[in-house]
Amino acid sequence: MEANDLVFRPKAVVLLSGGMDSAVCLAWAKAQGMIPYALSIRYGQRHSWELQCASKIANQSEATRHLILDLDLRSMGGSALTDTIPVPKNTPASDAIPITYVPARNTVFLSLALAWAETLQAHDLVIGVNSVDYSGYPDCRPAFIQTFNQLANLATREGVEGRSFQIHAPLQHLDKAGIIQLGLSLGVDFSQTHSCYDPQEEGAACGACDACRLREQGFAQLGIADPARPHPA
Amino acid sequence: MEANDLVFRPKAVVLLSGGMDSAVCLAWAKAQGMIPYALSIRYGQRHSWELQCASKIANQSEATRHLILDLDLRSMGGSALTDTIPVPKNTPASDAIPITYVPARNTVFLSLALAWAETLQAHDLVIGVNSVDYSGYPDCRPAFIQTFNQLANLATREGVEGRSFQIHAPLQHLDKAGIIQLGLSLGVDFSQTHSCYDPQEEGAACGACDACRLREQGFAQLGIADPARPHPA
Repeated sequence: MEANDLVFRPKAVVLLSGGMDSAVCLAWAKAQGMIPYALSIRYGQRHSWELQCASKIANQSEATRHLILDLDLRSMGGSALTDTIPVPKNTPASDAIPITYVPARNTVFLSLALAWAETLQAHDLVIGVNSVDYSGYPDCRPAFIQTFNQLANLATREGVEGRSFQIHAPLQHLDKAGIIQLGLSLGVDFSQTHSCYDPQEEGAACGACDACRLREQGFAQLGIADPARPHPA
Repeated sequence: MEANDLVFRPKAVVLLSGGMDSAVCLAWAKAQGMIPYALSIRYGQRHSWELQCASKIANQSEATRHLILDLDLRSMGGSALTDTIPVPKNTPASDAIPITYVPARNTVFLSLALAWAETLQAHDLVIGVNSVDYSGYPDCRPAFIQTFNQLANLATREGVEGRSFQIHAPLQHLDKAGIIQLGLSLGVDFSQTHSCYDPQEEGAACGACDACRLREQGFAQLGIADPARPHPA
């Protein structure tokens, strides 16, 4: 028996989208000694590529389980990511809430993660929000995460009985380059991750939406090539 | 033009389960002058009867729209209402959290209601929780509702931009008899409502689960017959 076998490893539910940020979160949870359960939501995204990436990442990272939950947010309407509104391209930087904001998305996703966590008797939830590059999204801010944490402990049997939940947002204060650096230090294979809001055939990134541009800038800042989409230079 | 046409009527999302409480909430919202949008969740209930009742109630109450959203909570496991655990019958009263508690259910349902509300630009959400008869459920308590209200205003574009959400729980401090009385005063047709956790063929109530017993006691306390299940006397 190795010494490691005696260490208590808490279960954690990690929200996994198939993008870079959540892939880093999954690796972070493992590095913290957590037993990761990955949760992806099929919520009516424009394309299935994202979820295929999530499955590959969950596999590579040896998540204990990867649950893909169906939830048809399209029936509600309301966002460029689920609706027929075109994804904006090459838009100038702005403090406004982007059109790609999905109404109450992180509230819905964290609620589902909480439901699963309580069922698993996991008390750690991990979400890849950050307030640097996506400051326009209200549900990526620290105050939102803190209040959800409070809610989780009021809302559940586990919380009420004193087994508190902890919501982790390990990327909260990192910019995209910082996230990539953290991921590389944890051995994340970014070739499997997907960021584009509007991918072309076979998942090729469009290169012009906000998500593509942030990703490109992040790798450029570090002076390294994006393994999913090598630098033209 | 009637004077009434000039009055602003806010839209409200009302969570509608097919039970008595949410039927009263829908009638309450209308009586408050709100334009009601009814939301039901098909979350892997043991039986479809509940949702059939929800549709009838939404129709009768002239909800502007009735959205039934699919969400497979069964894939998570964990409750007598969605799982293979038998529904408890004739259990003694207790302060413990009942086995029929569905992990984080009201958090998930309110999140979905919030997502739809934001899409509709509705700012009122109505939920039929009460802390008298169901004091065992953590997500029926006033502190839960208040904290969710706070979260809603942090989580959303509407909230951040100053168009606050209001979560209404008009049954919060009523017992079952009080809820029935309020419903009768608002013209609710209780013959269309369904309470049983474990219905028999064609939706007949079992008469022995917690929900059946609370319903029976409520009508008995008022000395009136349950139109859905007339008194034997």
